[in-house]
Amino acid sequence: MKFLDKEEQQLRQSKLQQFIREQGFDGLLVSSNANLYYVAGAVYAGYAYVPAEGDTLYLVRRPVGIEHPQVVYIRKPEQIVDALTAAGIAKPSRIALELDRLPYNMAKRLQAALNVETVFNGSPILSQSRSVKTPCEVELLRQSGIRHSNSYQRIPSVFEVGMTDVEFQIEMERVLRCDGCLGIFRISGESMELYMGNVLSGDNADTPTPYDFAMGGEGLHTSLPVGCNGTVLRYGNTLMVDMNGNFTGYMTDMTRSFRIGDVPQLALDAHQLSIDIHNRLREAIRPGFTAAEAYNLAAAMVADAGLDDYFMGHRQKAGFIGHGVGIEVNELPVLAPRSKDVFRAGNVIALEPKFVIPGVGAVGIESTYLVTESGLECLTEFPEELADLCQ
Amino acid sequence: MKFLDKEEQQLRQSKLQQFIREQGFDGLLVSSNANLYYVAGAVYAGYAYVPAEGDTLYLVRRPVGIEHPQVVYIRKPEQIVDALTAAGIAKPSRIALELDRLPYNMAKRLQAALNVETVFNGSPILSQSRSVKTPCEVELLRQSGIRHSNSYQRIPSVFEVGMTDVEFQIEMERVLRCDGCLGIFRISGESMELYMGNVLSGDNADTPTPYDFAMGGEGLHTSLPVGCNGTVLRYGNTLMVDMNGNFTGYMTDMTRSFRIGDVPQLALDAHQLSIDIHNRLREAIRPGFTAAEAYNLAAAMVADAGLDDYFMGHRQKAGFIGHGVGIEVNELPVLAPRSKDVFRAGNVIALEPKFVIPGVGAVGIESTYLVTESGLECLTEFPEELADLCQ
Repeated sequence: MKFLDKEEQQLRQSKLQQFIREQGFDGLLVSSNANLYYVAGAVYAGYAYVPAEGDTLYLVRRPVGIEHPQVVYIRKPEQIVDALTAAGIAKPSRIALELDRLPYNMAKRLQAALNVETVFNGSPILSQSRSVKTPCEVELLRQSGIRHSNSYQRIPSVFEVGMTDVEFQIEMERVLRCDGCLGIFRISGESMELYMGNVLSGDNADTPTPYDFAMGGEGLHTSLPVGCNGTVLRYGNTLMVDMNGNFTGYMTDMTRSFRIGDVPQLALDAHQLSIDIHNRLREAIRPGFTAAEAYNLAAAMVADAGLDDYFMGHRQKAGFIGHGVGIEVNELPVLAPRSKDVFRAGNVIALEPKFVIPGVGAVGIESTYLVTESGLECLTEFPEELADLCQ
Repeated sequence: MKFLDKEEQQLRQSKLQQFIREQGFDGLLVSSNANLYYVAGAVYAGYAYVPAEGDTLYLVRRPVGIEHPQVVYIRKPEQIVDALTAAGIAKPSRIALELDRLPYNMAKRLQAALNVETVFNGSPILSQSRSVKTPCEVELLRQSGIRHSNSYQRIPSVFEVGMTDVEFQIEMERVLRCDGCLGIFRISGESMELYMGNVLSGDNADTPTPYDFAMGGEGLHTSLPVGCNGTVLRYGNTLMVDMNGNFTGYMTDMTRSFRIGDVPQLALDAHQLSIDIHNRLREAIRPGFTAAEAYNLAAAMVADAGLDDYFMGHRQKAGFIGHGVGIEVNELPVLAPRSKDVFRAGNVIALEPKFVIPGVGAVGIESTYLVTESGLECLTEFPEELADLCQ
């Protein structure tokens, strides 16, 4: 099992340590797979202790056999303090845990094991640090974006009029997997679930979902009520394809919509407006611009066009038009009306202004962008128009 | 969105309420997707309040439009008490939450919203109730088992000597999905992850994983270090196939192993011993028999055969030989040496005595069984021998 190389590890560690010191913590105990992957470059069972100063200690329960100077093996959390002491780290008193993620009982067990009266929340530190990507992380996202786009080129060859949405999705799952997609779709939040993406057509696009995704769909079963539901792909409907872009442990997010023959002018107009919003936001978003301003800019364009009824859903609406992506698909910043997030160089964001046209389907595009000092750089280049899959 | 029919809902509710009253709780607030699916028959965003007596109240945040006499809509947890009051339910003081699953900060928010000094752990109640399946749940598992077995019949036609393990797995993913597999693999525990199953061949079977699965494998990437890793499927090795059996929201668990031409006698012997352990446990396991006894029986057979070095892994060993299955793949009872679980009629368990033979691969079988008064009924019928995929 290979961990991060030293230089990258130190870079991420120094970002975290700046936040740790700002908050007055002695250290941060990392415990979730997504955040262990961030601090170590590999998922393992155990913890990582990031002290306010000095080197991170990787406390590993499984797998056996990791050879790394900063790895120590433990069997249970009750051994953490002894492991820290043995590594020359003073017993921390102000310690931050992942309180937004750790199950209540596990947090309590850790608190007892660490013998501290209070535990502090380290989740925001990790989210903030992860929201500004390092050059290495950007490169992994860039690679995912290229491979994601390459896979999408096979959409027209997979499609046939009269197949169902799920038949189409299954073939695209195979395309993505053959092209190297890792399959797993990492998403933060205990109640968020999805399998390999969301393919929507016709009225199903207007079926509300319990999940906090931009779009809905009935799904194939009440145990996973989102996405394709067996709808036949028919002339006059659209097909929205929003599938898994995890090729490198870092996920790009990318949606393209297509038409099956002729569709109503409303669908064409809404799709063009989505492209226009992307173009407008590509001009507007710079380091220092706020996520709420970006949302409001998009919302104003939609209002001007009189398309509010269809924007971000119809029967049920999503409350955001974009979000950070990286190790997980729902990172900071969040482009929502009451977001406090401010864009920074190194953010990687997915913009997804989308529309649901009743009886037709969903339209609009989603692309993933790197925020740079000079504007947005698209990581998921692919034709944007509402192409006709029958031509 | 369709909820459980009244009779089934009442049956599950009455099982839960017996535990709730035994523990002296006023009610149980259900919050995780898996447990909401158990009490409602559909996943939604929100909560379910199961009072010690009387009807469950479904507190729904999303999706819009559920029509059900016991559904009330809320926007946030701070509205739960008012919603209970409006439904004629007295404000509970001894309330159980899912403390094994709820993130610490969410549990604290709920505690404040419910205005209670202490919260109690309702997770064991839900696990216990779910471990004894209702006849409807057994029927869903039976259906998954039949479809799971049907999909496995296509293993020989998918296999070709010289393909990689991941190429084989991708084709099997497609087979399963085309046959109706829902894709999602529900597993309890924040750090457990897997994509569509585990396919192992050759030395990769001996690569330790961080996850608490029976078997390991390097995986394709450090962000998901389990399972196939691109190993070429060669003569003289075995191929173990352990893939997703979620066809109905209830998952069967089923592993079959194959040989690619001739394999060493050790692999043949270990595979036969796995079959023998299944047969012995099918005679032994009855309501009242303990999970620890079952584990010890298997371990003794392995010791008698002198195969300890290979049992449940080689470089790294798993600490269990079976587990309950249902909505999630790791339910109660757990067949481990220190398990306190006692078998009950209605348990559905996967038995997976497996061996890792260095340089060859993994062997052994896994089948899912219903525990009945008269013994184990297999829900995943499929030939058990180490068949040669080249014949």
